Amino acid sequence: MASMIFTDTSSSSTSRLLTLTRFCNGVVSRRRYIGPLHVAPLKPNLPPTLCLSCRPSSRFITAAMATEPSAKVIDGKEVAKQIREEISAEVSKLKDAIGVVPGLAVILVGDRKDSATYVRNKKKACESVGITSFEVHLPEDASEQEVLKYISDFNDDPSVHGILVQLPLPSHMNEQTILNAVTIEKDVDGFHPLNIGRLAMRGRDPLFVPCTPKGCIELLHRYGVEIKGKRAVVIGRSNIVGMPAALLLQREDATVSIVHSRTKNPEEITRQADIIISAVGQPNMVRGSWIKPGAVIIDVGINPVEDASSPRGYRLVGDVCFEEACKIAAAVTPVPGGVGPMTIAMLLSNTLSSAKRAHNFQ
Amino acid sequence: MASMIFTDTSSSSTSRLLTLTRFCNGVVSRRRYIGPLHVAPLKPNLPPTLCLSCRPSSRFITAAMATEPSAKVIDGKEVAKQIREEISAEVSKLKDAIGVVPGLAVILVGDRKDSATYVRNKKKACESVGITSFEVHLPEDASEQEVLKYISDFNDDPSVHGILVQLPLPSHMNEQTILNAVTIEKDVDGFHPLNIGRLAMRGRDPLFVPCTPKGCIELLHRYGVEIKGKRAVVIGRSNIVGMPAALLLQREDATVSIVHSRTKNPEEITRQADIIISAVGQPNMVRGSWIKPGAVIIDVGINPVEDASSPRGYRLVGDVCFEEACKIAAAVTPVPGGVGPMTIAMLLSNTLSSAKRAHNFQ
Repeated sequence: MASMIFTDTSSSSTSRLLTLTRFCNGVVSRRRYIGPLHVAPLKPNLPPTLCLSCRPSSRFITAAMATEPSAKVIDGKEVAKQIREEISAEVSKLKDAIGVVPGLAVILVGDRKDSATYVRNKKKACESVGITSFEVHLPEDASEQEVLKYISDFNDDPSVHGILVQLPLPSHMNEQTILNAVTIEKDVDGFHPLNIGRLAMRGRDPLFVPCTPKGCIELLHRYGVEIKGKRAVVIGRSNIVGMPAALLLQREDATVSIVHSRTKNPEEITRQADIIISAVGQPNMVRGSWIKPGAVIIDVGINPVEDASSPRGYRLVGDVCFEEACKIAAAVTPVPGGVGPMTIAMLLSNTLSSAKRAHNFQ
Repeated sequence: MASMIFTDTSSSSTSRLLTLTRFCNGVVSRRRYIGPLHVAPLKPNLPPTLCLSCRPSSRFITAAMATEPSAKVIDGKEVAKQIREEISAEVSKLKDAIGVVPGLAVILVGDRKDSATYVRNKKKACESVGITSFEVHLPEDASEQEVLKYISDFNDDPSVHGILVQLPLPSHMNEQTILNAVTIEKDVDGFHPLNIGRLAMRGRDPLFVPCTPKGCIELLHRYGVEIKGKRAVVIGRSNIVGMPAALLLQREDATVSIVHSRTKNPEEITRQADIIISAVGQPNMVRGSWIKPGAVIIDVGINPVEDASSPRGYRLVGDVCFEEACKIAAAVTPVPGGVGPMTIAMLLSNTLSSAKRAHNFQ
């Protein structure tokens, strides 16, 4: 399956998602947000609970037949805002208690405009919650050794709790060598094989969970979606989203199947899922016929499609056909405004966790 | 799901499988080995090819209705023998070319008879292929520090290429601390989280693949079973078999689902699989009704069931009801004589690989 053109699922470039979200606000605001059929509020500030098992599928089939949208739209933007507020409060608490301010260092090499925007947005996000951001900007022709020297300095710097190297790096640099140089204690992206191994193993815990999959699960949690015992299908098996998302779902006792480019009957398998996480970068690939009535859908894809009515000539859509999903699913994330805003929120969360761990602060 | 009483899926105790295999040889020899319906020999010394896609399921349904066994029995004992011969030849080649002899160190603590037997069997297996075995036997009341000291010495010893700590350890020792002390370059069990992480990630390669799952995949390869694009179900999600087996199948482009104790409809999901790997420790749990006609079944379970006709009062069966599977599947491993003998063969294979890697020998 093709990789997503605009999707930015590593926290090394999460600000791209924010940029796109901002750009497409108009699209989101035109959607009809319709409440779920059976919901029970958990807390005043949280979205209502969605209980998969108590939703008879016939109600959804009926809803689908009437071609009226019935799915709850999972508002990632709102959840991310709430999480940032929680992080902000925790950062203050940490500072007040022991005088420690979490710090995130970002290393940018070269003059790519998009990369510069992402780094700027990360800086803003850090500032908004009280996390100190450190930035190193090296010229395009910087040597690998220079980058490694900065990583080494940040590894040793106790005021830095997370290190990100903005990707892509110039072609003369070995990405794996550079990423491997980041100490695992500050690998807030969570992509280090040791973290992934711990994520896969029962009885072990990773130091960091990769930001986008963590954001997907957090959305399910915040919307009260039961995961234990449910059938889950993850579409896509990338190292940064699909694979860790599947591992996370399994840790929560879902029965997980991973659908990928070599899967012969993806529609049939996906239709069995109570929970679908799609991260492949194929616009509108998951149609209504792929969806089990009452399923919950987390759409990680962010794909541009031509749209003459948009000032930029395109609009963004997910991997899932939103309009069709709305008629069949119990809940679905929009694109943009779904998973996108969660990734940077999880990056901030990982940086905070790292600072707390470094100072043994509960 | 309950853990297997007698199953020994870490190479730290592989010899248990060998012992049981020997004990039950009589059972194996009484089985009818029936050739597959459509097979084409690959090499004179290899078992014939099984092609899942060219086997119309109707033939299997017909076979099942006739209640005549039709499945090919996958002879793990024979394959393991062949692999040991290959390893023996490779060991000789390595010695002749650069004078290096692979070495495996086993640390045994305490006086458990079963553990002593396993260690002795590993030693024998090493000797049979020309691998040098090193053995340390410490008393039950040895300190953790003593064990760590030996591990440290073996880590530094260039004549040792693999280190195993025989489990279980006495209760006063922290198993994780001790296992983590084995350097990853000599972790021939392949259970280090860094190895598991690399196994999970596309574009990365583990230094070692855990022995039992590696043995399962090797059986599929040696019997020419196509994995790419097939539906695979792994029953059980243990760190040492189920989880790494699922990762291995996914690396080979199968569409993998993991069924476990929280799965609500294991029978229905398993029936969709072209390839089943079962590792749960429930005697005869997988019945004929769980099996898709023409599926290939790898049964890792080794479970004792009462049998008054046996001199010991019990016999060993797998997770899969062998008799029913024979009528429906295209191929199935027996218990014993299936996966069991493969585990120790893979341990020898990992030790050889480690020696070759240490000396950059192709």
